Amino acid sequence: MGLELYLDLLSQPCRSIYIFARSNNIPFEFKQVELFKDSVLGKKPAAGSGSEQPHAGSSNSEGAGKVSLLKKVPALKDGDFTLAECTAILLYLSRKYNTPDHWYPSDIQKRAQVDEYLSWHQANIRANAPKTMWIKVLIPLFTGQPLPSEKLQEVMEGLSASLKQFEERFLQNKAFIIGSEISLADLVAVVELMQPVGVGCDIFEDRPRLMEWRRRVEDAVGKELFLQAHEMIFNIKELSNIQIHPQLKEHLAPVLMKILK
Amino acid sequence: MGLELYLDLLSQPCRSIYIFARSNNIPFEFKQVELFKDSVLGKKPAAGSGSEQPHAGSSNSEGAGKVSLLKKVPALKDGDFTLAECTAILLYLSRKYNTPDHWYPSDIQKRAQVDEYLSWHQANIRANAPKTMWIKVLIPLFTGQPLPSEKLQEVMEGLSASLKQFEERFLQNKAFIIGSEISLADLVAVVELMQPVGVGCDIFEDRPRLMEWRRRVEDAVGKELFLQAHEMIFNIKELSNIQIHPQLKEHLAPVLMKILK
Repeated sequence: MGLELYLDLLSQPCRSIYIFARSNNIPFEFKQVELFKDSVLGKKPAAGSGSEQPHAGSSNSEGAGKVSLLKKVPALKDGDFTLAECTAILLYLSRKYNTPDHWYPSDIQKRAQVDEYLSWHQANIRANAPKTMWIKVLIPLFTGQPLPSEKLQEVMEGLSASLKQFEERFLQNKAFIIGSEISLADLVAVVELMQPVGVGCDIFEDRPRLMEWRRRVEDAVGKELFLQAHEMIFNIKELSNIQIHPQLKEHLAPVLMKILK
Repeated sequence: MGLELYLDLLSQPCRSIYIFARSNNIPFEFKQVELFKDSVLGKKPAAGSGSEQPHAGSSNSEGAGKVSLLKKVPALKDGDFTLAECTAILLYLSRKYNTPDHWYPSDIQKRAQVDEYLSWHQANIRANAPKTMWIKVLIPLFTGQPLPSEKLQEVMEGLSASLKQFEERFLQNKAFIIGSEISLADLVAVVELMQPVGVGCDIFEDRPRLMEWRRRVEDAVGKELFLQAHEMIFNIKELSNIQIHPQLKEHLAPVLMKILK
């Protein structure tokens, strides 16, 4: 049994793994997980299903599968070995498939800078950027009501502060975060920053330095692959018209509201 | 110029680095940073200081130094090279000083499990455990008023859920998180879980499996070193009697409240 990756490309960490594996020609079986199956896709939850396991299979597959919003993707299965957490999966793939050094340089100072970014990212960019999607798309979808605009403004202010640090402390005047070549740090950063773009908050618009960096990342991994990985998030607004099962609304609305508290 | 570590042992990540460096006999200069200098210690902020650089020096040193609550420790300086973020620093030290393999095993599956834990930790244990100190000690100190008890209860419930996952998913029936030997994962976990203990929320009390694991970690790094690293946090309640400069109260109270929102 070969490598299996359980991904939902609506999720940023999943996109980074997908792009990393594809652009490095790592052979894997794509196991599509649908985080919002039976909710965003408007399907009825299967009676008696108490599991929160994400449903894996083709996007058209039927079958049981309770909403898995709280179950995390991405996940990796390699024979008997399973692994969760985006960073851990990226590093495992880089080691097992011996990907080019620039992704996670063997130079200990450069490697430490990648580690430093990945850790900072988690508590900063990752703590702010995804909330734009909750506010603009998911919460209105589940609660039936838009959130007050101050809420979005608050999140955008937090994100702006993180982006300022990102540019001044990490990117500076370099081509990529740790210098002249792309690393895992750039990949993890860019997929996160595309999440607000997908929901109409184009944070690159007034940030030319950030925009140029994004273009370099796209070129480095391949524009076509980059676009393909982001297709779902670019179309996320279409989800707004879908009917959600009332029981699911009831279940998920308070969870979503708590995330944003 | 040799290795310098900028640490405040009130901070959990600083303690993990301190214990790691000391138990591996890594030679370093301890640069004491006082996160609450001019606040908890009741000193007046220096006029005109706009810097948020933490003040480094002996604990008795005088001099400028605006409150550095928002400035993060730990930090490493190795010649011209500087590095922030706990995980990055631990990994850098393990590579540069070639520490025993068990800390970050060369076996790629075990290494991936350490990475997996470190990432999970950040969004779970680390998102809950430190709040006990804010609620029990720091917020009352800065606002002059205790928080309603429901707030502590809410945090303790979140922490309990994380601890359940910690025991069932990560620790299981093993001696340490990734098997029979201690790794960076155990060290990062244990220092975080000592934070609630220091403020009177002994989360080990009703969790015998967790308590046994803690004892094994203490034995592995050395009980004396473990105690020494935790001396400040065990005495944190003494801080409650200290007078805080009104200007600082005004500045920090809303920041602290926001953290817990």
